[in-house]
Amino acid sequence: MPTTDNFRIEDTDVPQLNDGEVLVRTLYLSVDPYMRSRMNDRKSYVPPFKLNEPIVGGAVGEVVESRSPSFTKGDIVTGMLSWRLYSAAKAEELHKIDPKIAPITTALNILGIPGLTAYFGLLDICNPQPDETVVVSGAAGAVGTAVCQIAKIKGCRVVGIAGSDDKNAYLKNELQVDATINYKTEDVRQALANACPKGVDVYFDNVGGDVSDAALLLINKGARISICGQISMYNLERMDVGLRPQPLLLVNSAMMKGFIVIDYAPRFAEGVTQLGKWLAAGKLKYAENIVEGFENAPRAFLGLFAGENLGKQLVKVAE
Amino acid sequence: MPTTDNFRIEDTDVPQLNDGEVLVRTLYLSVDPYMRSRMNDRKSYVPPFKLNEPIVGGAVGEVVESRSPSFTKGDIVTGMLSWRLYSAAKAEELHKIDPKIAPITTALNILGIPGLTAYFGLLDICNPQPDETVVVSGAAGAVGTAVCQIAKIKGCRVVGIAGSDDKNAYLKNELQVDATINYKTEDVRQALANACPKGVDVYFDNVGGDVSDAALLLINKGARISICGQISMYNLERMDVGLRPQPLLLVNSAMMKGFIVIDYAPRFAEGVTQLGKWLAAGKLKYAENIVEGFENAPRAFLGLFAGENLGKQLVKVAE
Repeated sequence: MPTTDNFRIEDTDVPQLNDGEVLVRTLYLSVDPYMRSRMNDRKSYVPPFKLNEPIVGGAVGEVVESRSPSFTKGDIVTGMLSWRLYSAAKAEELHKIDPKIAPITTALNILGIPGLTAYFGLLDICNPQPDETVVVSGAAGAVGTAVCQIAKIKGCRVVGIAGSDDKNAYLKNELQVDATINYKTEDVRQALANACPKGVDVYFDNVGGDVSDAALLLINKGARISICGQISMYNLERMDVGLRPQPLLLVNSAMMKGFIVIDYAPRFAEGVTQLGKWLAAGKLKYAENIVEGFENAPRAFLGLFAGENLGKQLVKVAE
Repeated sequence: MPTTDNFRIEDTDVPQLNDGEVLVRTLYLSVDPYMRSRMNDRKSYVPPFKLNEPIVGGAVGEVVESRSPSFTKGDIVTGMLSWRLYSAAKAEELHKIDPKIAPITTALNILGIPGLTAYFGLLDICNPQPDETVVVSGAAGAVGTAVCQIAKIKGCRVVGIAGSDDKNAYLKNELQVDATINYKTEDVRQALANACPKGVDVYFDNVGGDVSDAALLLINKGARISICGQISMYNLERMDVGLRPQPLLLVNSAMMKGFIVIDYAPRFAEGVTQLGKWLAAGKLKYAENIVEGFENAPRAFLGLFAGENLGKQLVKVAE
């Protein structure tokens, strides 16, 4: 488990622009569980961060200077940016945001990577059908809240697993999730069996470990399991040992697939369009948890592993 | 682990036929690893066998009396039959075999359930591409030998894992498998890493457990894993604990799917036709290991778990 001692803040000059680049003043930083994987010096879906270099992650900013015809001063943009107050970014690696459509933070949440992760990870991998039972772990996170709502839109019975009663109250009262489980205070295997009298057809896995074992033990014939994250594993020193799922997949002809949202990059436009329609129609809600101050980004990141966030965890760097 | 003491032979009358039934004299019995699952009193892909009732399994026999217009005396048939010398079977549950096309035992092997299992489990679930690396565990069994050969037909590099040097010599010399590993005498993780310098794109899993862990640790981005059997698990008292594959599936966007061949019943005709063409063209070979005598069926079955069979294990009951 990292600590704030693993981070430091350095003063540097505002970068000079080359042709085709844009100077972006950082407004919001996204902190995400997957970033933990980039802090290990081993193969994962993205290369490791470099020591003594800034963290890189999703961000929203304002163009303050442009040497690209694609952007002008005042544009609000999103992209993968260094954790800096000002970044020089290549124009082709930025996307313009229209603040009139939705608050700009949605570009890091329901209309950004978390929303797309939920959209493709649930619909493409699991193809949920009306009346099927969909179980979502990490249900109160940015991805989880989107998955729960998309499953409801598809007519499923949705069971959310999260780590506090407040989160579960939000899932039930605001997102109309059918049943919830607090994995910190309940016997997850028993509670999930009670919440899924017809078994589990779809399991959207953000967490891994014992919580996932409980879902796997209940899968039905033809179940689909989307492996989106394994946050319970990210701070382990070695690979985890636990229930082998293969025999359960075998006897149920069930399918389990890992993914990273970038696999679906060619279809992002489709996803954002659909998510935007649902958002405009009031069918999707989103939650955000905003920590103020650039210097608090490490603390906000570490808070993900303590389950502090309801919805998307963001760091507000500037107005 | 069952023993021969769990089986007994009883004398009964030859059954009387009802209309629409056929009296079949048993010629060959198939013994299969999946039958072990039916000896547990718990949910699996097929219901448990009943105590004090005959085992039921794949068989080939000769029609000695018919009360169905579909069959006449002398027809050779296959179907799921009780382990009896003579069975009364419903006509619609039998298929006629043409002994001119191939030896009748192929109906229990390359042109029957094992061949179809290999065909759909490899092609439909894994969609192997030319030059991809395909790893097959249980490679010298009835299903494994078919999988190895179909993967070769598809232009893949094939690595087979089996439990004796004789089996591996057969795989290399007769079936042109590119590399083999003896899991009983070699360090499987190291040997498999050596045999798969480009990683593993497809893993066809007949065995589960530590052997499968070795393959999973080598999977490439986009790998596909077909869970056909878990023979290393079938005699365990409780669910096995081991390496959790979910983190490996996640970072590689890899897919793992269990299946039972009956899932593909609507496509059996397609499979048998293709397998028959490959067999006629000399592109497929098959091996069979025949134990003589009805009374030796339990011993032949138990031998599967000691890895005694090269190719399909059959019991010859009558000429």
